[in-house]
Amino acid sequence: MLPSPSPSIRMRAVDLIRKKRDSGELSREEIEFLVSGYTRGEIPDYQMAAWLMAVWIRGMNRSELAALTEVMLCSGEVLNHAEIPGKKVDKHSTGGVGDKTSLVLAPIVAAGGLTVPMISGRGLGHTGGTLDKLEAIPGFNVNLSLEQFRRVLHECGMGLIGQTAEIAPADKKIYALRDATSTVENIGLICASIMSKKLAEGIDALVLDVKTGSGAFMKKEEESIRLAEVMVETGKRMGKKVVALITGMDEPLGWMAGHSNEVWESLEVLKGRGPADLRDLSLDLSAWMFFLGERTKDVEEGRRLAETMVATGQALGKLRQGIRLQGGDERVVDEPERLPQARFRADVTSAAAGYITATNCEQFGTALATLGGGREKKEDKIDHAVGLEFHKRIGERVENGERLVTVHYNSDAKLAEAKALIASSYTIGESAPAEKRPLVRRIIGA
Amino acid sequence: MLPSPSPSIRMRAVDLIRKKRDSGELSREEIEFLVSGYTRGEIPDYQMAAWLMAVWIRGMNRSELAALTEVMLCSGEVLNHAEIPGKKVDKHSTGGVGDKTSLVLAPIVAAGGLTVPMISGRGLGHTGGTLDKLEAIPGFNVNLSLEQFRRVLHECGMGLIGQTAEIAPADKKIYALRDATSTVENIGLICASIMSKKLAEGIDALVLDVKTGSGAFMKKEEESIRLAEVMVETGKRMGKKVVALITGMDEPLGWMAGHSNEVWESLEVLKGRGPADLRDLSLDLSAWMFFLGERTKDVEEGRRLAETMVATGQALGKLRQGIRLQGGDERVVDEPERLPQARFRADVTSAAAGYITATNCEQFGTALATLGGGREKKEDKIDHAVGLEFHKRIGERVENGERLVTVHYNSDAKLAEAKALIASSYTIGESAPAEKRPLVRRIIGA
Repeated sequence: MLPSPSPSIRMRAVDLIRKKRDSGELSREEIEFLVSGYTRGEIPDYQMAAWLMAVWIRGMNRSELAALTEVMLCSGEVLNHAEIPGKKVDKHSTGGVGDKTSLVLAPIVAAGGLTVPMISGRGLGHTGGTLDKLEAIPGFNVNLSLEQFRRVLHECGMGLIGQTAEIAPADKKIYALRDATSTVENIGLICASIMSKKLAEGIDALVLDVKTGSGAFMKKEEESIRLAEVMVETGKRMGKKVVALITGMDEPLGWMAGHSNEVWESLEVLKGRGPADLRDLSLDLSAWMFFLGERTKDVEEGRRLAETMVATGQALGKLRQGIRLQGGDERVVDEPERLPQARFRADVTSAAAGYITATNCEQFGTALATLGGGREKKEDKIDHAVGLEFHKRIGERVENGERLVTVHYNSDAKLAEAKALIASSYTIGESAPAEKRPLVRRIIGA
Repeated sequence: MLPSPSPSIRMRAVDLIRKKRDSGELSREEIEFLVSGYTRGEIPDYQMAAWLMAVWIRGMNRSELAALTEVMLCSGEVLNHAEIPGKKVDKHSTGGVGDKTSLVLAPIVAAGGLTVPMISGRGLGHTGGTLDKLEAIPGFNVNLSLEQFRRVLHECGMGLIGQTAEIAPADKKIYALRDATSTVENIGLICASIMSKKLAEGIDALVLDVKTGSGAFMKKEEESIRLAEVMVETGKRMGKKVVALITGMDEPLGWMAGHSNEVWESLEVLKGRGPADLRDLSLDLSAWMFFLGERTKDVEEGRRLAETMVATGQALGKLRQGIRLQGGDERVVDEPERLPQARFRADVTSAAAGYITATNCEQFGTALATLGGGREKKEDKIDHAVGLEFHKRIGERVENGERLVTVHYNSDAKLAEAKALIASSYTIGESAPAEKRPLVRRIIGA
């Protein structure tokens, strides 16, 4: 909390807005005045909105960014899990289509002996959110109090909850405003939002999965790298071990998108099956978590440990325990048909023969949202059962009329719109594209 | 009013904010959606604030500006004075220190046979406002209904009122928001705000007095010229005769600033006395109004007519009539000591000998506001009696200890602060500055 300034030298929000509008640098005190004042309700939405737009356009330098992150972090409670032995680690993804690695790696890493205190978000726009996916499991409660969260963490080494009122309230309020004012996609604001929440979890180490490509918020690899560098630097400055993997999001991860579908596919991976890309990325991220959490001496040993946790069924058992502790129906682990199912299926087929050279991956996410599997406004309800099942990947050959995607849907109302979005997101060329790039493009901060 | 759009292709404020953020051009329909939605209260302050900041930084092109002006104009009633014979003309100044020409020229032009339906503003920041000056006259009512306004206009050819709820309500709401979000000083937004209000007056012709220099909102002459060009173009596109005079505001206009003081000085000019710069500019502006209002065949004849209206006392008589019709105490015309008087006087003297080479003229306005003669927030009350009396002009010689300004004040509380502002606004050099530039620098649109 900022002490009340004396009236004669008091700051005014309007002057700080002007300063940023004119490309000036704000001091830590000025950022604290704005963010604390806004969080307390003393600075109105419209002044914060004008400031955010000025920040979006003019940018922030490294020290402004560090100050913003710290002020947002300190706006609420910073958890401390000292009573739980061992290292606490987490992973954060910047979001994509079909990105369900949290559901796979949290049980792997917890089974491997580290603690994963994961505070996740909900889907917004074209991307899915871990909380929404977990809620596809009947009974699963993501709204634990911090006290319940601690008990679950202590008992099984992993807990998956949403942002509570105590955690980074400044971020919660600012994020909602950014969403309504087109000030979301800005490296500084994204970094401050993510890092203030993640550092409030009381973790020792963090692995970042920064997506890049047509299904990511950052479409260009340079932008993804810049975001990764800024987040790694911010985390390290606050004394945490942080690495970032830059990973491709030019097409969906795995074969499935949609909430029930993604839980089902995650279970497949934990059972030693499932798509190779999802399995590999989940194991890679787990490996880095084991290494940064000092559970293994290097990443390779971490990868082997992760594979063992899957092969022995320990990770699957950990997920079963986690679901039970958070009130969910653990029978879904062995009987995934208990997850909500869509009533109807429809295929989207190729209108040409050739090779898939690219996808506009964001459109798959938009199509899913159109079917009811995403939200336009925070208050919207999600249909967990609807989903997309992908049959072809970039580089593969398709014939005219061959099935590209099976749509799982419950209502005809928006089906045509969704199918059009899906069909138009494929680029079909005459020859196969050059060799595919690896999913993990680069590692920052290692 | 925009018809309700169909839900499938409905616009969203968030998309229009993004478009301007990314330097895109908004269509007329998009601008209407935003402005009408905001005026009706359907688009919240924070979205408008983000859009205004994006506009401030990214700018608008000519067709966006024309659309914004027109939409703001059409947000309320556009007056029609067809029942009053002859041309209706007005003048608008972009604001400065000691700028009281409206009080002089409105009675001159009305006495000369044209109708002046003047809707004015209040002072904000360092500049004074015509409405506040009029309210220094005991009983003067600037809050006439449109019906009362029409009656006054019909009877005496001039009416001086404030913006009513019916006139350009979009501008009223947007202006208040701009003031709180540091989005005031932008040529496009200023133009749309001024022109939407002025064109709603139902005038045939408009003379703009665009101030330039240290006491103006636009400090640089190029900026003042750009603003003038944009306003002239916008007015002409709407079928009005418009010219703009670019006039210097490097030092106060006349010898007096402060509300009672400025009414007093205006009366002096109407009595054939008063300072030369104020008299000359008022006559020049009146001359252009006569010419654009087709009362005279050229500006020179307009100037002679204006001089006659002063010399014969007809203009003074018109002011007397106008004050009476708007409920004011017309005796102030002959007994200006009936205006509110400050209780105390204090001198600011020169700390050096030499020539005045420049003034930071805005600081005089700030000093006046500090004494209670201006407002920081719209709700603040004004002390009409406080004022500044200037004894020296740029180019004149002063001795060490010689009087520069006499402060008329009512409370010691902020006197030291005001005196410091006044003293520090003078630059004293060893030699006289080069020849003074004429007050009227340029005429745009003639």
